Amino acid sequence: MSWFITFEGPEGAGKTTQCALLAARLREAGYSLLVTREPGGTPLGETIREWLLAGEALRPETEALLFTAARAEHVWDRIRPALERGTIVLCDRYVDSTLAYQGAGRGLDEGWLRELHRIATGDLWPDLTILLDVPVEVGLARRRAAAATITRLDQEELAFHRRVRAWYHAAAQRDPQRWRVVDATLAPEVVADVVWATVTEVMKRGRRSP
Amino acid sequence: MSWFITFEGPEGAGKTTQCALLAARLREAGYSLLVTREPGGTPLGETIREWLLAGEALRPETEALLFTAARAEHVWDRIRPALERGTIVLCDRYVDSTLAYQGAGRGLDEGWLRELHRIATGDLWPDLTILLDVPVEVGLARRRAAAATITRLDQEELAFHRRVRAWYHAAAQRDPQRWRVVDATLAPEVVADVVWATVTEVMKRGRRSP
Repeated sequence: MSWFITFEGPEGAGKTTQCALLAARLREAGYSLLVTREPGGTPLGETIREWLLAGEALRPETEALLFTAARAEHVWDRIRPALERGTIVLCDRYVDSTLAYQGAGRGLDEGWLRELHRIATGDLWPDLTILLDVPVEVGLARRRAAAATITRLDQEELAFHRRVRAWYHAAAQRDPQRWRVVDATLAPEVVADVVWATVTEVMKRGRRSP
Repeated sequence: MSWFITFEGPEGAGKTTQCALLAARLREAGYSLLVTREPGGTPLGETIREWLLAGEALRPETEALLFTAARAEHVWDRIRPALERGTIVLCDRYVDSTLAYQGAGRGLDEGWLRELHRIATGDLWPDLTILLDVPVEVGLARRRAAAATITRLDQEELAFHRRVRAWYHAAAQRDPQRWRVVDATLAPEVVADVVWATVTEVMKRGRRSP
């Protein structure tokens, strides 16, 4: 049985750590696994990741198009083939990041973003999405590795990250079948236990990829 | 008065040459000019150009998203500002190439491609598009710089380029206000005279950018 599981949440929520911890437990339990991330996961994806992380100022529309281009290759070259051979796929960020950051955060129309996704990926959505939730200030402080810098953040950046978090909360409420919200302010090993309990509980219920 | 003029047509039709010859004449006539090309024209565009020309096999959806991402930056950073300060913009390939190659050629839905363009560029279309028209076999032979190789082209490639050319012809027929078809099998200096006569005639009529 194949499962497509994604991690979402702000920078500093611990997505990469939790993805690795969950992967270790699933491997121990004998599952075959693909662990991947976005942007990335393919040569084009890694090139686009470098571009976007280099901090070149791009328009939100351009960002959305680049993320979606990378996602199309990722889905068709790696994720879909893995799901078809019965592998569990863990992905650090996926389409919900585009909806949250370029949509709610930067103000792009969500309907257009969903249409991009539909055509680019054949409308592939995760079976389970774990939102690692932290207050905006906590995520930003972790990202900067120093709580003291928070006071220097301008209001625009805070407002942006609040819109992103509010979008995640609303999405989780709209679709409780797919989303689980985990309090990521707890210690990483505690978060890992909650994630593991969540994943095994959901997988027991036997919801499979379409 | 600003004008946005694009060149379209297959590889081997002489777009780059004709773009340069027209630019020289317009400069002689005293016009201020931006001469650019797609993909390209910005740092992102040149990176994407390298990617696409490297021959990495990408899905048509991914190609369309990358071309459109590059176009968004190109339009907002270079083309629109130039038009706003009254410059004539000459561009070697633009959105019609995406409609012809990814749409008619690769089979993507033209409505989706137009919607991508609308949101990415604010729906910026050229004032005048010059189609440098050559039969498919002539274009391919010029591209390969040896007519003898034509016999080795597989039917799929020929069929692809025939769909592209048919799309260009149909587009020119649908919108004769914007399109002019120039026979590009003639000698380059003759083609340049026809292009120059066409451009000056259209500009005399005083149709301006929206």
